[in-house]
Amino acid sequence: MNNRHTTEIATLGEFGLIDRLTSRLAKRNTSTLMSAGDDAAVIDLGNDVLLLTTDMLTEGIDFDLSYFPLKHLGYKAIIRGVNDILAMNARPEQVVVALGISAKISVEALDELYEGMERACEELGIDIVGGDTTASMNGLVITVTATGRAKKGDVVYRSGAKEHDLICITSNLGAAYMGLHLLEREKRVLKDVENPEPKFAGHEYLLERYLKPRARVNVLDALREEGIHPTSMIDLSDGLASDLRQICRSSKCGARIYLERIPIARQTTELAEEMHIDPVIAALNGGEDHELLFTVPLDKQEAIMRLGLVDVIGHITREESGVILVTPDGEGIALKAQAFDR
Amino acid sequence: MNNRHTTEIATLGEFGLIDRLTSRLAKRNTSTLMSAGDDAAVIDLGNDVLLLTTDMLTEGIDFDLSYFPLKHLGYKAIIRGVNDILAMNARPEQVVVALGISAKISVEALDELYEGMERACEELGIDIVGGDTTASMNGLVITVTATGRAKKGDVVYRSGAKEHDLICITSNLGAAYMGLHLLEREKRVLKDVENPEPKFAGHEYLLERYLKPRARVNVLDALREEGIHPTSMIDLSDGLASDLRQICRSSKCGARIYLERIPIARQTTELAEEMHIDPVIAALNGGEDHELLFTVPLDKQEAIMRLGLVDVIGHITREESGVILVTPDGEGIALKAQAFDR
Repeated sequence: MNNRHTTEIATLGEFGLIDRLTSRLAKRNTSTLMSAGDDAAVIDLGNDVLLLTTDMLTEGIDFDLSYFPLKHLGYKAIIRGVNDILAMNARPEQVVVALGISAKISVEALDELYEGMERACEELGIDIVGGDTTASMNGLVITVTATGRAKKGDVVYRSGAKEHDLICITSNLGAAYMGLHLLEREKRVLKDVENPEPKFAGHEYLLERYLKPRARVNVLDALREEGIHPTSMIDLSDGLASDLRQICRSSKCGARIYLERIPIARQTTELAEEMHIDPVIAALNGGEDHELLFTVPLDKQEAIMRLGLVDVIGHITREESGVILVTPDGEGIALKAQAFDR
Repeated sequence: MNNRHTTEIATLGEFGLIDRLTSRLAKRNTSTLMSAGDDAAVIDLGNDVLLLTTDMLTEGIDFDLSYFPLKHLGYKAIIRGVNDILAMNARPEQVVVALGISAKISVEALDELYEGMERACEELGIDIVGGDTTASMNGLVITVTATGRAKKGDVVYRSGAKEHDLICITSNLGAAYMGLHLLEREKRVLKDVENPEPKFAGHEYLLERYLKPRARVNVLDALREEGIHPTSMIDLSDGLASDLRQICRSSKCGARIYLERIPIARQTTELAEEMHIDPVIAALNGGEDHELLFTVPLDKQEAIMRLGLVDVIGHITREESGVILVTPDGEGIALKAQAFDR
């Protein structure tokens, strides 16, 4: 745009871009309780708070329409948006949807997208209350902005993890990542084939995990019923390594997680080995799991095990201990995340 | 995407796409007072309501980075988002910003964009409380989602206009449209010139109206102080013809506006004539004015004139009379809007 010195965004590192952009933001309204720095913003409503979060998906980066059915895409866009509300331990209520529509998108295609969005909203009891449509020169763009509500004391931030807390996740990891890799492989292999027949048999689980992630409302309900209040929580979107580091960074703590305790589905391991991908890398850095990562006090260990809904993969330590993955032979490896954190 | 019959979006007509997409939306939360169909959604907070609106801008459609300074773009993105809150007669409070960032955007460019956004937020006393960044294959995308708050009884909908109400606007029209045309002309003319020197002298007003629209908070404040409660209101984004038709459609009424009462700035008329554009078309269909169009009861005529802040351009009629532009010689022309209403 000009001849001045310019910096590529990738050079800012894992949390650099967000930090740089948000550091300049002023707070002018007393109702603004929490700005950037968590899954959602927190706005004062008196006894309750309003949660607000926005999530953009762009064609070619976040989805590929050559294999992503529009109905699933609509469904996933809502789940992604809403997951950030759930990760604050709040009830999602309304969403607004902005669409950038490229010329190749037909009315029928938009119908399918909306059908998927409405399906997700129906399951979660939320309303699409508005939107915006504009043309897009190059590819579909979807921004879902979600609101939710919670009692002030019920909100769970990223910043509340304490030493000795247990680290929990709501499902096995890396499956969505392998589903994506499978779709990409079949697209590549069948590029010039006239009547392509992608080989998906036996991999339905992985495809579903990528194309149709589930919101874990049931886990949050169960925790509430058992009187277990998480001390910190985050939506697993960037991968366990990055998201656990987010919690540790916000909570000023360290963590030890144990490799043999990280659940990886059989289907994930099998396809990963077939494709010469380390299943542990898929689980740690794959991203798009859209499960919940949270911490609970140590004295809730029995109660949390009894639920049968989550896996405990480690515990919180002091900040100076770092964020460590412990291998089966007891070695500790410092966890790093990818450089450019989308 | 497949071989089924597909329909181009443009064939759906002025309000067709929005109607089609929103007709399927269910309402599941009692807190959802008003969904699609107005400038913003209305969510119940008890005595107050929350307003929520989202607005997407895509590069190449809504802005051209070859002449749109990023600082202005950031400013305008916020004003556009917030205007929909103002058009509900509410106080904007928080916004979240989602960005799709193309490879050519540097960190410094994003700094400028944010500087403009913060400038607008500072002027309006609002907070940027969160956001999302993703990569974009093709051009910058900006989605601003804004919240606002109002007492339940203060909210002004599009649907409240009554026969005999006066139709008011907050500034002259068509200037932003001519500013855009000027920028496009200079870009075209100087396409292959080595050291381009665009001829903007004398047209600063038009450029400013396009690049840096103003939020008319002062008008809303003045109306409140004078005890004038608008019966209907809309943000003038698609052009007077289209937006007036929106009010008439929602309010089930007609309208008569008088050509000689529609304010058009001298600068707008001069450039329009130079460029062989009908200034009336610029004012009626140009769009992007980002002024407020609203109606007030007839008995507020004196009070509204006394304000000196708005122009009265006509009055509301019965639905069967249609939406009519009256020319200086008394002829009535039915107002139509463009086919594809973004």
